[in-house]
Amino acid sequence: MYKTTIQSPDQTLAAALVNKINNKTKPLGALGQLEALALQTGLVQQTLAPQLQRPVMMVFAGDHGIVKAGVTPYPQEVTMQMVLNFLNGGAGINVFAKQNQMQVRVIDAGVNHQFEPHPELINAKIGMGTRNFLYEPAMTIVECEQALNQGVALAQAEIAQGSNVLGFGEMGIGNTSAAAAIMAVLCGLPVASCVGRGTGLDDAGLQKKTALIEQAVSKHQLNGKDALQVLATFGGFEIAMMVGAMLGAAQQRAMLLIDGFIATAALLVASRLQPAVLEYCVFSHCSDESGHRLMLQHLNATPLLNLGLRLGEGTGAALAYPLLQAAVNFLNQMASFESANVSREST
Amino acid sequence: MYKTTIQSPDQTLAAALVNKINNKTKPLGALGQLEALALQTGLVQQTLAPQLQRPVMMVFAGDHGIVKAGVTPYPQEVTMQMVLNFLNGGAGINVFAKQNQMQVRVIDAGVNHQFEPHPELINAKIGMGTRNFLYEPAMTIVECEQALNQGVALAQAEIAQGSNVLGFGEMGIGNTSAAAAIMAVLCGLPVASCVGRGTGLDDAGLQKKTALIEQAVSKHQLNGKDALQVLATFGGFEIAMMVGAMLGAAQQRAMLLIDGFIATAALLVASRLQPAVLEYCVFSHCSDESGHRLMLQHLNATPLLNLGLRLGEGTGAALAYPLLQAAVNFLNQMASFESANVSREST
Repeated sequence: MYKTTIQSPDQTLAAALVNKINNKTKPLGALGQLEALALQTGLVQQTLAPQLQRPVMMVFAGDHGIVKAGVTPYPQEVTMQMVLNFLNGGAGINVFAKQNQMQVRVIDAGVNHQFEPHPELINAKIGMGTRNFLYEPAMTIVECEQALNQGVALAQAEIAQGSNVLGFGEMGIGNTSAAAAIMAVLCGLPVASCVGRGTGLDDAGLQKKTALIEQAVSKHQLNGKDALQVLATFGGFEIAMMVGAMLGAAQQRAMLLIDGFIATAALLVASRLQPAVLEYCVFSHCSDESGHRLMLQHLNATPLLNLGLRLGEGTGAALAYPLLQAAVNFLNQMASFESANVSREST
Repeated sequence: MYKTTIQSPDQTLAAALVNKINNKTKPLGALGQLEALALQTGLVQQTLAPQLQRPVMMVFAGDHGIVKAGVTPYPQEVTMQMVLNFLNGGAGINVFAKQNQMQVRVIDAGVNHQFEPHPELINAKIGMGTRNFLYEPAMTIVECEQALNQGVALAQAEIAQGSNVLGFGEMGIGNTSAAAAIMAVLCGLPVASCVGRGTGLDDAGLQKKTALIEQAVSKHQLNGKDALQVLATFGGFEIAMMVGAMLGAAQQRAMLLIDGFIATAALLVASRLQPAVLEYCVFSHCSDESGHRLMLQHLNATPLLNLGLRLGEGTGAALAYPLLQAAVNFLNQMASFESANVSREST
């Protein structure tokens, strides 16, 4: 499923969309990035009057073997605890999704805990956390493909229910380490420029984390060309499932809201498997996690927000969603120079 | 009225607010600028549980004598035409305010047109546009004080009806020239670093605009210490009334949403009259109008958005409002580590 080819949006409507945008009662280009978003959304939806329907924030959770190496000051149990917090509506993503009328889906992609059945929890568990990639690949290729296909199916199930905009967030203690390793190998960058403080490392912790990831990257000797193998080696189940969900959403021509460092690392993998996925993406924000800015540059992405966020969970994507709504709304609702009888600039 | 002293918010609650923010289920500081906003709003409202009530976007319109000198490619009639567009709900500010459930107030502070009475238009006209500041002060001190007091009264009328958050936007062909002159004199900066392309000047137009404003600034020989005189000399009626509205809102301890280049120039004047006004301000965005970034730096302000907007009307403020809502919402709605049974980082 995840191998289905993603087509670039047809560009035939571009001129008519630009014309519609330029005829709105505003100076040419005066809505900046919102104008680019309006054009993109019109092209993705192949219409001059795009609509955002049933926005869903998919939050994928998983645990990471690498935490045993001491890459984070938080205990692994926090992943499980935060999943329960999501289900109880008490986390940041719940608050921001509710504010913006987005539904939250909580997906157990591989948390090291057996949850009681809960009506709001999607059980898509691939395993009880990944293996420690310091010594062995985090998952097998078979597990990785399972996670990818599960992600495709979950995203497409939302779209089948009427969604055309999906956000992607995550929870997984240790997953900035996984994302940094993926980034270093796929972008061919030194580990030190990919590693950050995650949820709150001090200088010594950062140094240790960098050294451990350097050791792991050096051990596995991957060349970056086989993104699937890179994902299986370093990825978490939540990252792999998010890659699948991104691919599945773009296959169905939905708009994708990309969150922070980990979600962008998932997209980096997705874009190596299917480059056209990028044309469906809204880059919601630049996180405070060092490495994210560099990864966005690598993807030629211009983020909407730059608020020093580093929470994950999809919070940046939920916070940016009103800007996508604004882009669609100005395109549909603003008067044109003609309809409002407003004079243009003299030339 | 505009002379009423503005008090800084009492800081006694700061420690308790920071404690509440730090106990939310997120790494310390992980919500970046939203945490600063939550703290500020709690201090302004003097509560651990701030609420945003009845948000209003006040859009002040006025005409400028300086347009006769050829500082803009748009005819002066566009101010009047855009006021009608606001009243018909077709402008950018209407679309974004509606999206975010803000009410729009359209205020004729001094448009060069006699409008028919309209239920949505507030007639606060000081004159039929200002005089050309190339040759004489744009308004008299009496007119300027009239506009200031009218602004105070209009803002306080909104607050009396239950608003505690007011946005400030404007419309006035030629008003980037007025704002640039005010900025140059009050900040003591070269005119060239304050002048931008406004609604769409080409290189030759920009050069001409800069030369004209340099000439005007040089003619009036103001020292920047008497902000009222600077405002009267270069300001528009809409700028002066906005200054008054900002002062009136802060006197009543409302939160102020500051829009782009012209609104920030109004705030610059307000802050010279009453420095504490700044503590009530949310800086919504950094506009694409060159000079705005420098003015924000001068005010030590960190804007929320940076989207290349240069539309005015309050559009940046309306687009940033959901971020202020998010700050208040996370403070009120997110679970604490204790309530959610989430482990903290080990120390």
